[in-house]
Amino acid sequence: MRKIAWMMIGVLLISHLLHSQNKVVVFQSDFGLKDGAVSAMKGVATGVSDKLKLYDLTHEIPAYNIWEAAYRLEQTVPYWPAGTVFVSVVDPGVGTSRKSVVLKTNSGHYIVTPDNGTLTLVAASLGVAELREIDEAVNRRKGSGKSYTFHGRDVYAYTAARLASGVITFEQVGAVLPKKVVTLPYQHATLEDNKLKGNIAILDVQYGNIWTNIDADLVSKLSLKYGDVLHADFFHNDQQIASVDAPYSETFGAVPEGKPLAYFNSLMQLSFALNMGNIAESYHIGSGSGWSVVVYRKGK
Amino acid sequence: MRKIAWMMIGVLLISHLLHSQNKVVVFQSDFGLKDGAVSAMKGVATGVSDKLKLYDLTHEIPAYNIWEAAYRLEQTVPYWPAGTVFVSVVDPGVGTSRKSVVLKTNSGHYIVTPDNGTLTLVAASLGVAELREIDEAVNRRKGSGKSYTFHGRDVYAYTAARLASGVITFEQVGAVLPKKVVTLPYQHATLEDNKLKGNIAILDVQYGNIWTNIDADLVSKLSLKYGDVLHADFFHNDQQIASVDAPYSETFGAVPEGKPLAYFNSLMQLSFALNMGNIAESYHIGSGSGWSVVVYRKGK
Amino acid sequence: MRKIAWMMIGVLLISHLLHSQNKVVVFQSDFGLKDGAVSAMKGVATGVSDKLKLYDLTHEIPAYNIWEAAYRLEQTVPYWPAGTVFVSVVDPGVGTSRKSVVLKTNSGHYIVTPDNGTLTLVAASLGVAELREIDEAVNRRKGSGKSYTFHGRDVYAYTAARLASGVITFEQVGAVLPKKVVTLPYQHATLEDNKLKGNIAILDVQYGNIWTNIDADLVSKLSLKYGDVLHADFFHNDQQIASVDAPYSETFGAVPEGKPLAYFNSLMQLSFALNMGNIAESYHIGSGSGWSVVVYRKGK
Repeated sequence: MRKIAWMMIGVLLISHLLHSQNKVVVFQSDFGLKDGAVSAMKGVATGVSDKLKLYDLTHEIPAYNIWEAAYRLEQTVPYWPAGTVFVSVVDPGVGTSRKSVVLKTNSGHYIVTPDNGTLTLVAASLGVAELREIDEAVNRRKGSGKSYTFHGRDVYAYTAARLASGVITFEQVGAVLPKKVVTLPYQHATLEDNKLKGNIAILDVQYGNIWTNIDADLVSKLSLKYGDVLHADFFHNDQQIASVDAPYSETFGAVPEGKPLAYFNSLMQLSFALNMGNIAESYHIGSGSGWSVVVYRKGK
Repeated sequence: MRKIAWMMIGVLLISHLLHSQNKVVVFQSDFGLKDGAVSAMKGVATGVSDKLKLYDLTHEIPAYNIWEAAYRLEQTVPYWPAGTVFVSVVDPGVGTSRKSVVLKTNSGHYIVTPDNGTLTLVAASLGVAELREIDEAVNRRKGSGKSYTFHGRDVYAYTAARLASGVITFEQVGAVLPKKVVTLPYQHATLEDNKLKGNIAILDVQYGNIWTNIDADLVSKLSLKYGDVLHADFFHNDQQIASVDAPYSETFGAVPEGKPLAYFNSLMQLSFALNMGNIAESYHIGSGSGWSVVVYRKGK
Repeated sequence: MRKIAWMMIGVLLISHLLHSQNKVVVFQSDFGLKDGAVSAMKGVATGVSDKLKLYDLTHEIPAYNIWEAAYRLEQTVPYWPAGTVFVSVVDPGVGTSRKSVVLKTNSGHYIVTPDNGTLTLVAASLGVAELREIDEAVNRRKGSGKSYTFHGRDVYAYTAARLASGVITFEQVGAVLPKKVVTLPYQHATLEDNKLKGNIAILDVQYGNIWTNIDADLVSKLSLKYGDVLHADFFHNDQQIASVDAPYSETFGAVPEGKPLAYFNSLMQLSFALNMGNIAESYHIGSGSGWSVVVYRKGK
């Protein structure tokens, strides 16, 4: 009788400890939310373990836009606790030789994704602790793969759920790969001869403002004062698309309506806007891997 | 003292077992996500039990489109584990005599919905284990029903939460009904005299491609080779709307831009598209219960 | 040995009791779902406790529309169980002197928000049990606030998660404030001299119908019969915008296509529509704090 009591306590303790794990999976894709694709991924994950908590980053990544998938991960992953498992499925190369991988970052986050450039920015900012290729012989949903395989559901969501729930360890994902993810090329933020260079990382969705990857620390070396005019040349794959003179401003209202200004966005990165306007649309400027900017203080 | 310890262990064991149930509810509707309707449903479910995990299929079903509700369930339910409870609220007949039911499929899934055709496709593919009418005298949110009843919130979400959390058994939903759900008529996939007939089940949301219910197994009986030309006549309620000659193709690029092709979609069902175009828009073709297609190999 | 067993039982009991709490946080904002902002808030909340269940009200509040934030809370909060913690971030005044607060309603719900009018309607309908100002010296995410602070993530989501998970008590949110939230002005529903006055609370998103805050109980004092014609004058900040004669109708089909009618919406509040039309668009009528209506029975 005493023995049974101890066994029960043991069972409860183990159950309690399992309950104490993170068990969180966060999904990102370019699927949208109008059909059942995202729900099918969560169904497969729940089938692995109904103890998981399943959340979303976004499913509104523009179709096949790997750069934006990379950017949204970079913007969001650090705010989740270590141990959280992310699934990112923006996969124009499905059916090609791109590898299916799980990245463990130095910060302790896991990202399950095709290795097609999606990891470009988090690998750089959070660091690569270890990269493993998913062994599909083990980590693919049973019954899938006879005809068509929906990798997001049958491989990525399935593997992420197994990892997050403790069904497999990170080592059991598959063979270890060299610590080198596929990266999209982009202009890193630099300062040379008083010229700032950087990438146009993203457009502010609602207003068309231009957000660069040039952070406030680097800009501070120009010792700008509000009102100083910055000259900015915008490039797409080395072809100049537009140039503006933009006063460095604390508020949008510091310049007349329709006029350009330079400011720091909510991530403290150098940004450009038109007061009450859409600078990206007006000047035909886009964002992503191939877009860059050169900035210097005018009259210097 | 010893007694109390045993009681505590008992309480903990029971609590642990309750924790071990599936307790997952998945919601679908045509409400959209701009107002508070979906959240109110989840609030009522959480009020029944805060142990539930509440997920979504989609809330972007076009208003009152029962066919699409049926299709999204068919596409998604099988990927969730047995025991999962679905709520589908696309209910143009609210206030009429349509019954409020819970279907238990042969696969062990539960679907809570108005019986208005929403169950057409899952009943056919997963099978009807048992159908019960919701007894609103018991399974309606207390305090509702005095004036207006929002059935999705006060009856369907409430009943689903009670069922998923174990507050009621399936038997306690209400009286058993004959194993016969209300079905929308549609062209089943058939092959006769080398002619395939089928339903236009859905349009691929983003590109306007035509997805039929004719699966690869049936098509294989035509022994097609890539490049063979298929003739397809598209009908709406027996009136011919369009016809195309579409080469059976492995990739979209196999035909010139703007030209039709036939291919298998991700569900391995016969589909039609224009390379770099929108076939549904170009040929005024829709999808749903009343839309069908007849296909045969040309030159045979 | 006996002692250890008792300690274990103690630990398990405590853990079980913690598990038994509500631990639900519901998020609302004007951020949309295209970028990572909502996900970052949920990540911070999960970092406080991975036991939380995180749900959404809506993130499609029109940018900076405090009134609509207030309305969606009013419409939704009562359907969640007492103890649920809401986060609402519609914050045009970020960086100004608006206070960051947590309201405890008389119904036992908690709402974490800038005190900028967002609480106007729930304070009136659910009652103010206690209002506290968030002490950011304690209740702000560690490491935030050096440069830019994203209040939704670093203060509101963080504080809500601490409160919902039991890391802090409501008292530990910060100092108690007078029981008086910032309110947007609006026309309360009244009946004088057989004239109903009220606010145009919201437009029905999909159809442009006009929903007022005049409920069925008040209207019943006019002893209307179906077919009685109501005259309605619509005002924006005391300027008359339009007026219609609208028969009080049980169904939309009771009036010819394109003609106005008066009816009760799903909240049993007096509403106006065009049969098969969009009354708000046709008559340039909006909704919110500054919009009101005066209604009386014609021929009386």
